[in-house]
Amino acid sequence: MPQIKDIGEIGLIKRITRPPKDKAILVGIGDDAAVVQMKEGFQVLTTDCLVEGDHFRNDWFTPEQIGMKAIEINVSDVAAMGGRPKFALVSLVLPNDLQVDFFDRIYDGMWKACDRNSLEIIGGNMAHGNFIVISITLIGEIEGNNCTLRKGAQPGDSLFVSGCLGNGRAGLRAYQNNLQGFNKTKNKYLEPKARLAYALKIAPYAHAMIDISDGLASEIRHICNQSHLGANIFLDQIPINDEVREIARILGENEYDYALYGGEDFELLYAVSEENFQHVKGIFIGKIINSPEIKLIYNDSEEEIKRTGYDHFSNDF
Amino acid sequence: MPQIKDIGEIGLIKRITRPPKDKAILVGIGDDAAVVQMKEGFQVLTTDCLVEGDHFRNDWFTPEQIGMKAIEINVSDVAAMGGRPKFALVSLVLPNDLQVDFFDRIYDGMWKACDRNSLEIIGGNMAHGNFIVISITLIGEIEGNNCTLRKGAQPGDSLFVSGCLGNGRAGLRAYQNNLQGFNKTKNKYLEPKARLAYALKIAPYAHAMIDISDGLASEIRHICNQSHLGANIFLDQIPINDEVREIARILGENEYDYALYGGEDFELLYAVSEENFQHVKGIFIGKIINSPEIKLIYNDSEEEIKRTGYDHFSNDF
Repeated sequence: MPQIKDIGEIGLIKRITRPPKDKAILVGIGDDAAVVQMKEGFQVLTTDCLVEGDHFRNDWFTPEQIGMKAIEINVSDVAAMGGRPKFALVSLVLPNDLQVDFFDRIYDGMWKACDRNSLEIIGGNMAHGNFIVISITLIGEIEGNNCTLRKGAQPGDSLFVSGCLGNGRAGLRAYQNNLQGFNKTKNKYLEPKARLAYALKIAPYAHAMIDISDGLASEIRHICNQSHLGANIFLDQIPINDEVREIARILGENEYDYALYGGEDFELLYAVSEENFQHVKGIFIGKIINSPEIKLIYNDSEEEIKRTGYDHFSNDF
Repeated sequence: MPQIKDIGEIGLIKRITRPPKDKAILVGIGDDAAVVQMKEGFQVLTTDCLVEGDHFRNDWFTPEQIGMKAIEINVSDVAAMGGRPKFALVSLVLPNDLQVDFFDRIYDGMWKACDRNSLEIIGGNMAHGNFIVISITLIGEIEGNNCTLRKGAQPGDSLFVSGCLGNGRAGLRAYQNNLQGFNKTKNKYLEPKARLAYALKIAPYAHAMIDISDGLASEIRHICNQSHLGANIFLDQIPINDEVREIARILGENEYDYALYGGEDFELLYAVSEENFQHVKGIFIGKIINSPEIKLIYNDSEEEIKRTGYDHFSNDF
């Protein structure tokens, strides 16, 4: 089975190159840099990476799933800004003895996620290392006034999420504890899908939006800190599906901890004022308040949320 | 001494954020993604990374030098396309126990190289890993018809380089062999500087241009392959300075091997037709020929160059 070090640059480039579909791509893979034709307007740019051992394990993820996830987590960031992704650049660190088939399948996964989200890989770079690192930069465009920042929330806004939370953490815990079954949750962990179409519908009507990559508590804190406001979160409104509740029960853990402090759900959290309720869908979980505190309310008790997400250190900035 | 894991996301973001100078930066570090105001035109995009152990060693490079190099190698790619860099995104993999002071100094170096090349860091990402990886994506603009690809060389074009070659490899060999002195060459290895201003002057008049990151032989091959032509290279025209010759002599190695098959010189190689000689400067090293071969000519003998650069695997695509 050939290894990466046997193939050489030209061989690798041939494997990953596709003829560009987007006519704006004037120079794609294979020169010092890519060149695209830009229209006047707002451009959105983000970068995020997957590190072997930290973000994925080769015995849980197929190479295709690693590739898909690398793209989807970046699409999720573009979507959370109200943007539409267009171009990707891929920076890879790969072990010398990696099987070429594994490399091909990572790219198959990346292209599959690109097709799903209508974007194209236009360039990249490869280097040696003892473990796999996949850094993706995504460039997209924002139409009109659709840019949804973290800082735009207003007092009285309602907070919504786009779907059930806790899947990412529950899937991870199921793998870590060798639980059988729970395939729906495991699959959501292995194959997160960015909420791009959903975000583009919400963006014109949301005061603030963020994707939930590091747990709900962490993302609410970002919106509140940057909007200089607080929030009331109603614990029993947080949507959690039955499999996640069952995984938590078996492991003697708390499903709300998965949702609040887990990571990798890639749902959206957004703040909408009452006059725009008719235009948005979503699951109501709380309110923005004119106070510095973020409070978790359950029955008639409340407590301040002081913990944040899964991991301070693995974050966009 | 505080370590990365002690600081938290907010703490790290505060350390790396500067108020944007460029008014086109609408959202910089600190949201899901950056947002910039784009003008209509050609945009150039590239990504390249530095890996600890492979591209730098902490006992040779200061943290500032690591940061500077990470930016400069990307500026070099943008420059080689005839572009002017504008924005950088930084994706970092860092060990948990890295000293915060080391991190700060990497960023100091990156900002220093950014200032030198008039660009700004607008976003990024951080993750854990056992060794440092710095992936940079650079976005720039190309004015008018200045886009200089690899594929544009024409038969009869003269090949020029922007400066002495072999410094990158000679500096590395000096360190590997604990040679004392040779500070000029060592410094060129530790602190390569992209030829941005030079490239912008050459771009309107060059048929093809590339930066010399993997050795002259490799870069000539890129231009020839993509232009479907060959080249004659005149060995004794290849510019090599005295320190590099002396390092090769001491180590019993060949200084022309450093230039042809070494790496990390970050000079420019470009093809210019005779009618444009008056507009360009540079050191003549050879000619583009209507043949599939790349020949190295010395006195009256010639040999085909079949080897390529330093490393097939560590390359842009």
